Amino acid sequence: MTDLTTTILDRIRDVPDYPQAGVVFKDITPLLGDHVAFCAVIDALADELAVDKVVGIEARGFILAAPVAYRAGAGFVPVRKKGKLPAETLEASYDLEYGSAVIEVHRDAFSPGDRVLIVDDVLATGGTAQATVELVSRAGAHVVGVSVLMELAFLKGRDRLPDVDVRALVAV
Amino acid sequence: MTDLTTTILDRIRDVPDYPQAGVVFKDITPLLGDHVAFCAVIDALADELAVDKVVGIEARGFILAAPVAYRAGAGFVPVRKKGKLPAETLEASYDLEYGSAVIEVHRDAFSPGDRVLIVDDVLATGGTAQATVELVSRAGAHVVGVSVLMELAFLKGRDRLPDVDVRALVAV
Repeated sequence: MTDLTTTILDRIRDVPDYPQAGVVFKDITPLLGDHVAFCAVIDALADELAVDKVVGIEARGFILAAPVAYRAGAGFVPVRKKGKLPAETLEASYDLEYGSAVIEVHRDAFSPGDRVLIVDDVLATGGTAQATVELVSRAGAHVVGVSVLMELAFLKGRDRLPDVDVRALVAV
Repeated sequence: MTDLTTTILDRIRDVPDYPQAGVVFKDITPLLGDHVAFCAVIDALADELAVDKVVGIEARGFILAAPVAYRAGAGFVPVRKKGKLPAETLEASYDLEYGSAVIEVHRDAFSPGDRVLIVDDVLATGGTAQATVELVSRAGAHVVGVSVLMELAFLKGRDRLPDVDVRALVAV
């Protein structure tokens, strides 16, 4: 493992039975609170890609995506749960274990041809990421990649993003 | 007005009748999406204060607080709505126009004596900020200031934070 991988894995806390019995939640707050680890993660997520905008997905995604935007000298665009953005929006739905959810982006969030990096904390089933890629594309911008802190590889989220450059700092 | 003030005010969009009729919502997404303005705002919010941790308040507060933490070389600590943090928490309630809300922070989020900057997008009535100051203090850390992008001065939120260094980049 690289130093960064070790740094990250040492600071992710397993919380059993959250949000429900039988689930082990991967808590990234110890990582966020450690300034050396936090800054190293932001630097790694922002690495190399030349982008105009970074998209963050409400709410934990904002915590990584906004500093990546700052680090990359890019603008920040929030993708939010339905009803939270005040101006005209585009929306996309995705499946949850039970039912579905809707996310939105402002219709005027991008300039035509903007190169966009999507950043989130976790790639799980890929449903949210897939819906976000769809939203960015429909808004007239170009997705150059999806970068996440942590990939739950056994859920095969990557398979739902076949044409996208998906990067994860660690896989668990 | 300074250049930064003009930069900010030019990129805040008034959205009438959101979230309800008669309210004019101050939409900061055009500011966030402009990379020059976004980076200038983060630099200004991070200015001068030496801090160990930056606290962001869910959800829009994360968008400014996390890059301020990165810029300041500090750790990031999320304050979230009740039920969203997985480990043991402290909680505080504050009044809303109708009813009340509860926010939480992880009990182990700070080291004793940590110097903490609280960052949010808007200071309105000050209820959320006051509850956050209380949470940070109860968790054993020291609040060195509350910094916001925008202060709605007519709501007198500052009056609820008499012993706190409150800074706003613009007042509207």
